[in-house]
Amino acid sequence: MSKEAQNLYPMHALLIRRWSPRAFRSDNIPEEKLRTLFEAARWSASGGNQQPWRFILGTNGDESFSKILDSLDDGNRSWAQNAPVLVLSVGKKTQNRNDRPNSSYRYDLGQAVAHLSIQATEEGLYVHQMGGFNPDLCRQAFSIPPDFDPITVFAVGFLGDPSQLEGNNRIRETEPRQRMAFDEFVFSGTFGQPSSLFP
Amino acid sequence: MSKEAQNLYPMHALLIRRWSPRAFRSDNIPEEKLRTLFEAARWSASGGNQQPWRFILGTNGDESFSKILDSLDDGNRSWAQNAPVLVLSVGKKTQNRNDRPNSSYRYDLGQAVAHLSIQATEEGLYVHQMGGFNPDLCRQAFSIPPDFDPITVFAVGFLGDPSQLEGNNRIRETEPRQRMAFDEFVFSGTFGQPSSLFP
Repeated sequence: MSKEAQNLYPMHALLIRRWSPRAFRSDNIPEEKLRTLFEAARWSASGGNQQPWRFILGTNGDESFSKILDSLDDGNRSWAQNAPVLVLSVGKKTQNRNDRPNSSYRYDLGQAVAHLSIQATEEGLYVHQMGGFNPDLCRQAFSIPPDFDPITVFAVGFLGDPSQLEGNNRIRETEPRQRMAFDEFVFSGTFGQPSSLFP
Repeated sequence: MSKEAQNLYPMHALLIRRWSPRAFRSDNIPEEKLRTLFEAARWSASGGNQQPWRFILGTNGDESFSKILDSLDDGNRSWAQNAPVLVLSVGKKTQNRNDRPNSSYRYDLGQAVAHLSIQATEEGLYVHQMGGFNPDLCRQAFSIPPDFDPITVFAVGFLGDPSQLEGNNRIRETEPRQRMAFDEFVFSGTFGQPSSLFP
């Protein structure tokens, strides 16, 4: 099976290879590889260069990992417990220079994690991002101040085998990936009118 | 001058090369290159695979370009008017299956534009994203429905020369890029406590 993107137009090999597995090998991630991921996040773009991304790193077996794992929805916890690394992503809601709201903090955090995921692919690693977790539990467990919001949790590791998974998770691990057609999301002239770029 | 990232740890060449210029050459972007950008966006990750990204494509000289340009803050309009392409990014605020809010639509849209930007770098193109525009004007101009929100505008093109720019924009075009240190954003144990990954 291959979960590579079924792209219709050329796309960089890293973007073709990237996907979000649930089966991870238990192997530790070498620290030098892990550092490159946060380097990639660090150099992503942000509105006014506010860099509203913060990350709490948990390594399987340490306290941070347990706290993050405890915050996950049951469905995610069942497979994420085997990942070597779990990271809580946190967004800064306010500007660095004053307390005014930063309207792009979620968008910018998403970009940083995208860069991190692509660097992970380069390192032979995979990233699975999750929205299904309890942010309030994370806020308490890590004493996250009110001007910051826990936004996602993501697992990082080397690819495992679908047979590690059970039930629906195993099925989803090998199902073909689905994406919208171009005329559903690239418009011109008015919203909803397909662009002539994709005839 | 080089605006490449000054990374301390290894990072993929595309991520090193990516930055957000204001000086673009007026050269058109070949359609086959432009298509690869939206292909890259299409295959990015999203919560529940909701793919909440929509794009309105404006090519310099057409009506969509003018509408997007008109919505920009003065500071952005001064340089963006010379870019060959302007794109309005729009996020879908609700789930596809029902009308419940999609809490990750901004985060996911950011990821899609990050993928697009990295593919652009591969094509020799550069992307500059902007939050400084009038979303209400865009909503009117493109008849954007209430369950969608205009989030950013981005310019795409080949790199121009800083001497095209005036005043502060010219200065910023060659200034060194700044990023936080790792101990400011990679934590472990508790929020704000630097991870031992970066000693």
